[in-house]
Amino acid sequence: MIRRLTIFGVGLIGGSLSLALRAAGTCQEVVGCSRSESHLREAKDLGVIDRYTLDPVEAVKGADMVVLAVPLGAMRGVCEAIRGHLEPDASLTDVGSAKASVVEAVREGFGEMPLGFVPGHPIAGTEKSGVSAAFPTLFHERRVILTPLETTDLGALARVRTMWEEAGAVVETMSVEHHDEVLAATSHLPHLLAFGLVDSLARMGEREEIFRYAAGGFRDFTRIASSDPVMWRDVCLANQEAILKVMGRYQEDLGMITRAIEAGDGDSLLEIFQRAKGARDRFCP
Amino acid sequence: MIRRLTIFGVGLIGGSLSLALRAAGTCQEVVGCSRSESHLREAKDLGVIDRYTLDPVEAVKGADMVVLAVPLGAMRGVCEAIRGHLEPDASLTDVGSAKASVVEAVREGFGEMPLGFVPGHPIAGTEKSGVSAAFPTLFHERRVILTPLETTDLGALARVRTMWEEAGAVVETMSVEHHDEVLAATSHLPHLLAFGLVDSLARMGEREEIFRYAAGGFRDFTRIASSDPVMWRDVCLANQEAILKVMGRYQEDLGMITRAIEAGDGDSLLEIFQRAKGARDRFCP
Repeated sequence: MIRRLTIFGVGLIGGSLSLALRAAGTCQEVVGCSRSESHLREAKDLGVIDRYTLDPVEAVKGADMVVLAVPLGAMRGVCEAIRGHLEPDASLTDVGSAKASVVEAVREGFGEMPLGFVPGHPIAGTEKSGVSAAFPTLFHERRVILTPLETTDLGALARVRTMWEEAGAVVETMSVEHHDEVLAATSHLPHLLAFGLVDSLARMGEREEIFRYAAGGFRDFTRIASSDPVMWRDVCLANQEAILKVMGRYQEDLGMITRAIEAGDGDSLLEIFQRAKGARDRFCP
Repeated sequence: MIRRLTIFGVGLIGGSLSLALRAAGTCQEVVGCSRSESHLREAKDLGVIDRYTLDPVEAVKGADMVVLAVPLGAMRGVCEAIRGHLEPDASLTDVGSAKASVVEAVREGFGEMPLGFVPGHPIAGTEKSGVSAAFPTLFHERRVILTPLETTDLGALARVRTMWEEAGAVVETMSVEHHDEVLAATSHLPHLLAFGLVDSLARMGEREEIFRYAAGGFRDFTRIASSDPVMWRDVCLANQEAILKVMGRYQEDLGMITRAIEAGDGDSLLEIFQRAKGARDRFCP
C-alpha cells in the first residue's frame, strides 16, 4: 500500500497510473505537481488526483512514492527542485522513454544518485496526450521495463515493481543500455518514420487531395504521427546514439529496396516482403 | 442490374465485391475463374460465388460485367486468354493498385484497347488476403477511383460506376498518371516502409526479444507489413517510376531528420513533428 503518491506531470501516463492505483485500492492519496496550474486543476476536476501543489518541495513532503512523469527535457529541473527534500523512505521512479538520459538527469539534479531511484518505462500509451486522455486500464497486460542501477536499493525496486503490477502491468528488468537500444528500434524509429512520412506528404503540392485517398493502411501507419511533438523531440535528443544506429541500418535497408525497384528485381523484393510478413505474423499475431 | 458477373481472381477484393453485390441484390449470377481450383471451390463453398470454371473463355460467356481481380503480374495473361471472347455488350474493369501498367497489360493482351474497358481501383483492403477474408461491407463508404481512357465507352463507365456504388463505395474519376502518383505516396510508399522496418528488425540479432517490446504503436505501424508479398512485389514493378520519385523525396526528408538528431537540433525536430501532427490531425481525424 502506497501512503502518498506524488506524480510530477499528470498527463496521459501519470494520470493513468493514478487512476489504475486508485481503482486497485492500493494508494491512499495522490498528489499532483507540475508547472501548469490549469492542467493540475483539470486533473483534480476529473478525479484523477486528490490534490495538487505547484511547489515541488511541498509535493514530496510525506510521499513514500514519487513518480517523474514529465517530458525527458524537464526531468533534471524537477530533481534539482526536490533535492534534499525526499523522505528517507521514499522510492523514486520515472516513466521516460529513454533511460540513460534520465539516469544522467537524476544524477545531475540530485548531485548524486538517490539510492531509492528505480528507472522505469511503461511500454504503453496512445497517440493522445494530456490528462483528459488518461484511463485506468492503460497498463493492463502491458510491459513495464525497470532498469535498476548498481546503486538501486532492492526495497525500492520491489516497491516500484509492486506498484506497476497493481496497475495491471507485467514488469521486467534489463540494463539501461539494452533498453535504449531495443526501444530505439521498436518505438523511436517507427515514430520518426511516421512523422517523416506525413511531413513529406504534407509538403508536397495538392496535399489535401493526397490525404483524401489515404486508406486504412495509411491511417494505421501514421497514427503515431499524432503523438506529442515535444515528447518526441526530447526522445530524439535523449536517445540520440541508439536512434542514429538503427536509423542508419534502416536507411541502408531502404536503399536496398530502392535499388531492387530500380533494377526491376522482383525476386529480391519478394524475398524482403516475405521475410517481413513472416516476422510480423509470427511476433505480432 | 448485372446479368452475369465474371470475376477473375476471387480473393479479398473480388470476393468482397461479389458478396456486396449479392447483398445489394443487384447481380443475378457470379462466375469465378482463376488458375486454382481449390481457391474457387473454397469461394463456392463459402457462398461467395454461384459457380466457377477454370476456362477463361467459358467464364466470360454471357457475362455483361467482367472484373479482373488477379495480381498485377497476371493481368496480361488473363486478357490474352479472353481475347476475342468478350460479349459485345460486356463492360470490363479491374481492381489493380497501379493503373498505367494495367492499361498497358490490357492493350497488349487484347492487341487493342477494348472500348468497354474502365480501369478501376477500390481504395480498400485489409492486411489479410484470400477469399476467406472477404466480407460484404469492405467497400462501404470507401473510395473507388476510376481512370477512364479516351477510348472508354461512356456506357461502360456508367455501368462500372453504378456497380461500385451499389457495393457501397464513393466513386471518383481521375487520370491514370495522377492516380499512380497519389497512390505511390499514400499507399505504396507506406507499405514499403513497413515491410522495410520489420525486415530490418527481423534481421537484427535477438529478434524475438525486440518484437516482445513492441507496443501498440508498432503494431499499428507495421500492420501493413502482413500484406500479400506477391501483390506488393507486382505493385513495385508496376508503379516503379512514381514509387521511386516519392521514395527519393522521403529519403531526403529522413536524411534531414537524421542530420537534426546528429546535430542535437531540437528546434528543427520540433518543427517537423508539429507540422506532421498538424497534417495528420487535420486530414485523418
